Amino acid sequence: MKVAARAHVPPFAVMEILAAANARRAAGERVLNLCAGEPATGASEAVRRRAAELLTSGDLGYTEALGAPRLRAAIAAHYREWYGVEVDPARVAVTTGSSGGFVLTFLAAFDVGDRVALARPGYPAYTNILAALGCEVVELAAGPGTRFQPTVAMLEEAHAAAPLEGLVVASPANPTGTMIDAAELAALADWCGAHGVRLVSDEIYHGITYTAAEVATAARYLGSGAVVVNSFSKYWAMTGWRLGWLVLPEDLAGPVDALAGNVALCPPALAQHAGLAAFSSEGMAAARENVERYAAARALLLERLPELGWTDVAPADGAFYLYGDVSASGLDSVTWCARLLDEAGVALTPGTDFDPVDGHRYVRLSFASSVEVVAEAVDRVVAWQRTLRP
Amino acid sequence: MKVAARAHVPPFAVMEILAAANARRAAGERVLNLCAGEPATGASEAVRRRAAELLTSGDLGYTEALGAPRLRAAIAAHYREWYGVEVDPARVAVTTGSSGGFVLTFLAAFDVGDRVALARPGYPAYTNILAALGCEVVELAAGPGTRFQPTVAMLEEAHAAAPLEGLVVASPANPTGTMIDAAELAALADWCGAHGVRLVSDEIYHGITYTAAEVATAARYLGSGAVVVNSFSKYWAMTGWRLGWLVLPEDLAGPVDALAGNVALCPPALAQHAGLAAFSSEGMAAARENVERYAAARALLLERLPELGWTDVAPADGAFYLYGDVSASGLDSVTWCARLLDEAGVALTPGTDFDPVDGHRYVRLSFASSVEVVAEAVDRVVAWQRTLRP
Repeated sequence: MKVAARAHVPPFAVMEILAAANARRAAGERVLNLCAGEPATGASEAVRRRAAELLTSGDLGYTEALGAPRLRAAIAAHYREWYGVEVDPARVAVTTGSSGGFVLTFLAAFDVGDRVALARPGYPAYTNILAALGCEVVELAAGPGTRFQPTVAMLEEAHAAAPLEGLVVASPANPTGTMIDAAELAALADWCGAHGVRLVSDEIYHGITYTAAEVATAARYLGSGAVVVNSFSKYWAMTGWRLGWLVLPEDLAGPVDALAGNVALCPPALAQHAGLAAFSSEGMAAARENVERYAAARALLLERLPELGWTDVAPADGAFYLYGDVSASGLDSVTWCARLLDEAGVALTPGTDFDPVDGHRYVRLSFASSVEVVAEAVDRVVAWQRTLRP
Repeated sequence: MKVAARAHVPPFAVMEILAAANARRAAGERVLNLCAGEPATGASEAVRRRAAELLTSGDLGYTEALGAPRLRAAIAAHYREWYGVEVDPARVAVTTGSSGGFVLTFLAAFDVGDRVALARPGYPAYTNILAALGCEVVELAAGPGTRFQPTVAMLEEAHAAAPLEGLVVASPANPTGTMIDAAELAALADWCGAHGVRLVSDEIYHGITYTAAEVATAARYLGSGAVVVNSFSKYWAMTGWRLGWLVLPEDLAGPVDALAGNVALCPPALAQHAGLAAFSSEGMAAARENVERYAAARALLLERLPELGWTDVAPADGAFYLYGDVSASGLDSVTWCARLLDEAGVALTPGTDFDPVDGHRYVRLSFASSVEVVAEAVDRVVAWQRTLRP
C-alpha cells in the first residue's frame, strides 16, 4: 500500500539524544537534560486553580471553532497592554498550540506549490509543515552576520529568483534567541505588503526577553496582511495544555474560521477557560518570575562562555537558548552531542535539527531549567571539552 | 494579498441556525437545541477527579508526539476487551481529537491529487480536510437503498473511472446512524487491500449502538493497510477535551509519528493522563449510562416517527442522530429548519451540511440531549408541521 510522498519528514536528531538520555536515566544515571525547549515549571497556580474549579462546575464541551469569546477578548486586550496596539477580538483565533496556528495559517494563506521563505537555522516544524502541505520552502541562509535573522536584501534576492508568496519569521528565534528589532520588522512588513508576500510572525517567545529594546509585534502590520502566531506554552509555561492563538488580517479571518471548524473543531476547552487566568495579576507575576530564572541562567552562561569556548554565539536577546559553534572541537555536532551525553551525561541538541547545511557546526543549549542545573551542565561540558584536546 | 484557493471551505448551514438559536435564547426564549452532535453530559466523574488530582501533582508538559505510553497501552487493551483483537500499543497514536487523527492520516496516506472516496451523505469535515490537503474527493451517492453506506459495487465503479487511493467509511455514521455490518466491512477491507486502496474507518460512535449485531472494527484489517480513527468525544462524552486516537497499519506508524511531532507536537497532556480513567470501571459505567439515555430517546423517536411523518429514516443502529426526509412539506430543508426554529423554537440541522445534492430533502435531529427535551421537541415539531398543511 502507498505511503504519501509528503509523509517523508526528516527525523530529528534530538529524538535519538532524548531516547539515549532516558535510557541512561532509567539505568540510574543523573542526566542533565538541556535539549528540550520546555520551561521546567508548569502552568501557574492561578491557571491550575481555575482549571480545578472548572472540573467541578464548568462546561467542558466544544467551544466556538475560533475559541471562547472571553479568551479572544482577553488576548486582544493583552495587545493593548503590552504593545499599545488595538486588536479587534474578531481577529483573534484561539488555536491548539502554535502548531495548530501554523497549520491553519499555512492552509489559509498558501496553496500547493507556493514559495514560502524562512531563515536557516530555524524551528524545523515550519519547514516540515509547509512541505507536508505541498509548499516549496525557500531557505534564507542567515548566519551570525545578520544575527541569524532574514533581511530585506535576502528577500529581494529570493523573490527575484521566483516570486515568493510568504515569509515566516521568528523573534526571539529558536534556536538562536536573536530578535528582529522594531525598525527591521517594519522594513520586512512593508516589503512584504508591497510585494504581496504574506508575513507570518512567530512571537511565541515574546515576554522572554533580556534587553531593554522594544519587542516589536507584527500585530502592528495586519493592514499589510501580516499574521501573528503566539502561544501560552513558553511565557506562561503551559506546554502540554496545547493553547495558542493567531492575530489575523481581515482577509484571513473568515477562511481560518471555516478551516478551523473542519481541521480542529475547537481548541481544548479546559485549557481555554483556565487559560484566561494566565492574564490575571497572579498569572502574569508567575510568568515574570520564570523569566527572572531564565535571566539568571543566561547571565551565568554568558559569564562562562569564554570557558566554553563556543564561537558565533549571538548572544540570545530572548527565548531560552544558546546556539554556539563547537566545530573547533573537530567533531560534527551530532557526534559531539552523542559523545557529550555518553561521556558527561549532558543532553544538548545538535544544530542539524535546525539547519541541515551549517548545523553540523552548532549545538543548542536550552536554559529553561534551573540555574543550578545549567551551572552543573556547564561544569560538565567544560571538563568534558578538555578531554577532547590532543 | 492572496488567500489560498484551498481555504474556500463551504460554510455550514448549521452555523446560521446556531447563531439564530443563540440570539433567541439570549432574548429569553426557550430554544430546544437538537442540532449539535454533542452529548448533553460531560466527562465522567472518574475522569474529572483524576484531572483534578493531576492539576495539583501532575506533569502537564509535552508528552511523546504519539501520546503517553500508558494511554496508548490502555487503548490497545481496549481492543482486546471490546473486540477480541490484539493491537500492539506501538500501533496506537493518540491524537488531538479525531480531527487531529484525520489530518495526520490523510497527510500520511494521500498526496496532492489523490482520489479518495466517501459516502454522501457524510460528515462534512472528511471532504473539507481532504480538499484543503489537495486531494480529490469522490462522492459515492449512498441513499436509503444501501442504508446510506458505500458498497463494493460503488467502489468498483468509482475505481474503474479513475484509480482510487483511499476510502473513508463511518459506522455508525453521521448523519444517519447506520452501520456497516461485519461481513460488509470485511468485503470492503478485502477489496481495498486487493486494490491498494487505503481504508480509513471512522469508529467514533462505537459503543453508542442499539442493536444486538456485532460492531465490527477495521482494527481487524491493519494487515490490509486499514486505519482506524476513534475518539473519547462521543462514547466517553469528552468533546471539549480534544482527545482521540488512531490504530495504524505498520507502514503508516513511522510517518504518522514524524508528522505528528511537527503538525501537533503532542495531544493535550491533561486530557491524555486523565483520559486513562475513562477506561476504569467507573468511567465505563458512566458511558453505558449515557448510552441508555440515548436509547430511551431513540425509542421515543421511533415510536413517534409515524406522527412526524418523515420518510427514508434508516433507522439509526447507532450514534445519536435521526436523519429523515421532510420534502413532503414542500420546503427545502434549509428553509424548513429556519422556519422550525423561528416558529417553534427547535433547532435541527439541514441535510445540506452532509449532502450538497440530496440534502435539501433531509434534516438531522440529534438525540444526545435528555429524553424530556427530545419529547418536547417532537411535540413542537409535530404541532408546527400541522401548520404547514394547506
